[in-house]
Amino acid sequence: MPTPPLPDRVRDLLAKANPAVITTLREDGQPVSVATWYLLDGDRLLVNMDATRKRLQHLHDDPRVSLTVLDEASWYNHVSVVGRITELRDDVGLADIDRLSTHYRGRDYPDRDSPRVSGWIEIERWHGWGATQG
Amino acid sequence: MPTPPLPDRVRDLLAKANPAVITTLREDGQPVSVATWYLLDGDRLLVNMDATRKRLQHLHDDPRVSLTVLDEASWYNHVSVVGRITELRDDVGLADIDRLSTHYRGRDYPDRDSPRVSGWIEIERWHGWGATQG
Repeated sequence: MPTPPLPDRVRDLLAKANPAVITTLREDGQPVSVATWYLLDGDRLLVNMDATRKRLQHLHDDPRVSLTVLDEASWYNHVSVVGRITELRDDVGLADIDRLSTHYRGRDYPDRDSPRVSGWIEIERWHGWGATQG
Repeated sequence: MPTPPLPDRVRDLLAKANPAVITTLREDGQPVSVATWYLLDGDRLLVNMDATRKRLQHLHDDPRVSLTVLDEASWYNHVSVVGRITELRDDVGLADIDRLSTHYRGRDYPDRDSPRVSGWIEIERWHGWGATQG
């Protein structure tokens, strides 16, 4: 798997509001995956989760993650990155989930009551298939 | 996360030719994910890979996997399963990849030259969001 910097064709795919799946590690090392919103934020990937998610505890215990992004136009084009969450921060004022929600749905996040946490994935390696193939 | 048996609404989603992402573990425990075809085969999930894939070595070393399936009609409906590959078998005559290719693309797999391996995921736990929510 190549290392960063990401070529433009990969950045272009990651910049779109595509379906994605993130995998974290349970404390026993079992991988657990779930669909997620993400946002290319500089050279890192922003994700955001409800503050009560067990996934948050997993990330505190072991920050290693994998994220696969499927091109919504054709999921045979896809990019996967492996890396780690290098920053976890309370999403004060829900500013980050609003950025994500606006990116995906064109409006602020509807639930204003549940506290959320943001995480930034530092990309260590990536691999592309289809139009993004390395 | 609930344990099997899977309710019908989850089996119905898994029975469709949906986009999916599988995660395996590198030898150092780092999760690595990639888009994949899958097929609900009885109570297990069939996946298939090129015999030269590093992923195959990973599965020999640690059979734990996670699979997230996105409803192609709306990826806000999704199901994730965690479990392990309980069987790995050479895909003799490419019978299994042809089943997968027919399911997804309506025809046999075009590459008849590269040997492939089939794996069956035994589901230990699952979780659904959207229409499949538990």
